[in-house]
Amino acid sequence: MSLPENLRNRLCDLLGDRLSEGAADRDHHAQSESFHRAPPPDAVAWPETTQEVSAILAACDEVGVPVIAWGAGTSLEGHALAVRGGLTLDFGRMDRVLEVRPEDMTVSIQPGVTREALNQELRATGLFFSVDPGANASLGGMAATRASGTTAVRYGTMRDNVLALEVVLADGRIIRTGTRAAKSSAGYDLTALFVGSEGTLGIITELTLRLHGQPEQVAAAVCAFDDLDRAVECVSTTIQSGIPMARIEFVDAATARAFNGYAGASLPELPHLMVEFHGSPGAVREDAERFGEIAADYGAKGFDWATTPEDRARLWRMRHGAYHACLSLRPGASGVLTDICVPMSELPAAVHAAAEDIAANGFIGPIVGHVGDGNFHSILLVDPGDEAEVARAKEVAFRMAERALAVGGTITGEHGVGLGKRALMPAQHGEAWQVMGAIKAALDPRDTLNPGKLVPDRN
Amino acid sequence: MSLPENLRNRLCDLLGDRLSEGAADRDHHAQSESFHRAPPPDAVAWPETTQEVSAILAACDEVGVPVIAWGAGTSLEGHALAVRGGLTLDFGRMDRVLEVRPEDMTVSIQPGVTREALNQELRATGLFFSVDPGANASLGGMAATRASGTTAVRYGTMRDNVLALEVVLADGRIIRTGTRAAKSSAGYDLTALFVGSEGTLGIITELTLRLHGQPEQVAAAVCAFDDLDRAVECVSTTIQSGIPMARIEFVDAATARAFNGYAGASLPELPHLMVEFHGSPGAVREDAERFGEIAADYGAKGFDWATTPEDRARLWRMRHGAYHACLSLRPGASGVLTDICVPMSELPAAVHAAAEDIAANGFIGPIVGHVGDGNFHSILLVDPGDEAEVARAKEVAFRMAERALAVGGTITGEHGVGLGKRALMPAQHGEAWQVMGAIKAALDPRDTLNPGKLVPDRN
Repeated sequence: MSLPENLRNRLCDLLGDRLSEGAADRDHHAQSESFHRAPPPDAVAWPETTQEVSAILAACDEVGVPVIAWGAGTSLEGHALAVRGGLTLDFGRMDRVLEVRPEDMTVSIQPGVTREALNQELRATGLFFSVDPGANASLGGMAATRASGTTAVRYGTMRDNVLALEVVLADGRIIRTGTRAAKSSAGYDLTALFVGSEGTLGIITELTLRLHGQPEQVAAAVCAFDDLDRAVECVSTTIQSGIPMARIEFVDAATARAFNGYAGASLPELPHLMVEFHGSPGAVREDAERFGEIAADYGAKGFDWATTPEDRARLWRMRHGAYHACLSLRPGASGVLTDICVPMSELPAAVHAAAEDIAANGFIGPIVGHVGDGNFHSILLVDPGDEAEVARAKEVAFRMAERALAVGGTITGEHGVGLGKRALMPAQHGEAWQVMGAIKAALDPRDTLNPGKLVPDRN
Repeated sequence: MSLPENLRNRLCDLLGDRLSEGAADRDHHAQSESFHRAPPPDAVAWPETTQEVSAILAACDEVGVPVIAWGAGTSLEGHALAVRGGLTLDFGRMDRVLEVRPEDMTVSIQPGVTREALNQELRATGLFFSVDPGANASLGGMAATRASGTTAVRYGTMRDNVLALEVVLADGRIIRTGTRAAKSSAGYDLTALFVGSEGTLGIITELTLRLHGQPEQVAAAVCAFDDLDRAVECVSTTIQSGIPMARIEFVDAATARAFNGYAGASLPELPHLMVEFHGSPGAVREDAERFGEIAADYGAKGFDWATTPEDRARLWRMRHGAYHACLSLRPGASGVLTDICVPMSELPAAVHAAAEDIAANGFIGPIVGHVGDGNFHSILLVDPGDEAEVARAKEVAFRMAERALAVGGTITGEHGVGLGKRALMPAQHGEAWQVMGAIKAALDPRDTLNPGKLVPDRN
């Protein structure tokens, strides 16, 4: 497929060499961090302004050419793959921090700003942006997928940290949602609707984010447990006790092995918790002590405190590298990723059942998770060329999702729907999935925006 | 107007004497806490189950009769008034707490449960529901208006504390939104869309709410300031310093006078802050000391600590009674209420400008607010029979809203749109208001649900 002649001419006039139909550019935008694959888009554009995005969308909508937004390409579910061809909008050139307002603890940015670039920019303000999915994702992409990560247990997800958006609709209209005030009751919460809509309702061209004060004191530690159940039960008890954990991450024995081999760690091959405390010196001491007592009840051992910023950076870099470390456990493998999230009381049973199913099916499938939210992942290592094996891994993943739904949980805690979870949407939402489809049809009547994703196919 | 014969028969068969066309019942559901007035609905129904709500909505939708949900009747903006006639659904009989899950810190309830009844029910669990608008509102109504109140600065608004909903759509379909997990990225955030939709997109028939642990220690105090500016600047500085205030409320000198006259208080006739701290004993002491130091910098005096639960209850009962206390400053008066919310850095200027405009126009217009969120109200006391005066008060209110919008704030921080704020919606949202209308049309094509509210009128 290629762009219709008329559209190509309009876009060329608008963008010049910021429109590419070259194979390398197109192929680059067909890449995916996970095993999802799709043909490349017909073309790639690098807009620089909201007005350009508006003109592009209006032009594509007129002739029915799909438009897919692309941030940093770190999606794990193939969100930004052009499954029906069309034009990929790469936001790499809309990466400016527009305004930091330290007194309001907010910042306005363009969607191509990455998480790390934003925090670099904020360094001198005493503030930071909290949502931390590990990958150096773009903030536009993080909003579009309602990302979260290790600190969500304390500071919330993108749902909680996006105050306002500028969005371009399918027909090119530009709207603003939300305000810079801390709260508002002025009608439908369009901000929350666009956060997590995965580029299917509109394209985000500006975000206003909530910031947090850098904690006065930070302490982090890793500790080991004799078995998975005791580690996870320790998490449930800790959360239920109300200790305001800044991070509480679980990694299983296989992940510890992967860290040792891939990241040069020297952890016992046991399940671990990785924890962090934020607050005043007194509060951090109090919280760490209370956690230590609970952990001791579950037989925690080998407490290793990361006392310097460098030690902590190393600890969390290791945690954030878990996906790639785990892939190294089976050279050449791809990962079928699960991402369920369950109510806290159901967490120990859910992790236990997942581990049993993985073992019973003979997979290497390390389990890691933001367990303070009840969210965990297994990385089922598969030979991407072995269709039968991939299918079997997907069955394990499907059963995990089914069990999550059976106890009131969700098929995706943070990765989003993309290609990987769409087949599970009817099971999770029932008739509400049709409601999502009705909203999509109302806002994007020609199905221009990231078609083939999230909502039911049109009749 | 009266119900069409066919519809009346269907509803009678379904509800028996839980359908009323009597004048007293209809008039009761034409009441409003504020000066908004509308004719009574044609009939009132008291459903007892979701299935009944579904059958009622399907029947009304078929013949184009409006349906308006009614909780406790405490709306301040006339949300539940039947401006186009139709059937009011009173949720007074759907008031059961369905399931408390202490380990998950969640509860599922029917929409007619009131805030106070819920907390009464939770008393033995060590948990509480945090959102506290003052009035003993129904939780269904609080969700529908995205209510907040005194503790939102610490625990969030209804946006943050509703995890999942059961909703009946205009055509009678029953859907479930959200899950019982702490977070989810599984598609559009329909929960957030229905929270704050004021009964225009669907009728809430069940809510799953987030609970919080009762704080180990609570301390509360009231203190006075020489002038309004210094009190409000103290709030901005306190919030910016990161002290995790559980409550920080402003009342002006006129409100202090009203408390003295109406609630038997003996406060100096000066602006006051009313504050509360929650946490471990050490943290509460630390926070209270830090606040005390900041307040001293702004000349705070007459610190009065409420040390017993009874003292605290008296303090917050007084605060919650501010609206009625202020009405007593002018016997026979009604209140034209403002509800703006601005970014924290803009709060001192916004309160100052409001006070000046009120004074310049000769109104008694006490100012109170949940200032930790940047949210405050003025209660402009008017003779409801004096149209010119009401119009002049509305102009003052309109200018306040305009100033809020000019600095990135909102026309309503917590009261919602209802009748009172609808005329301001285009100014706040621009083209995004049309998007709200498109969503409404997609979900309620016959405009059955609370018509004439929130979204633009249909062409």
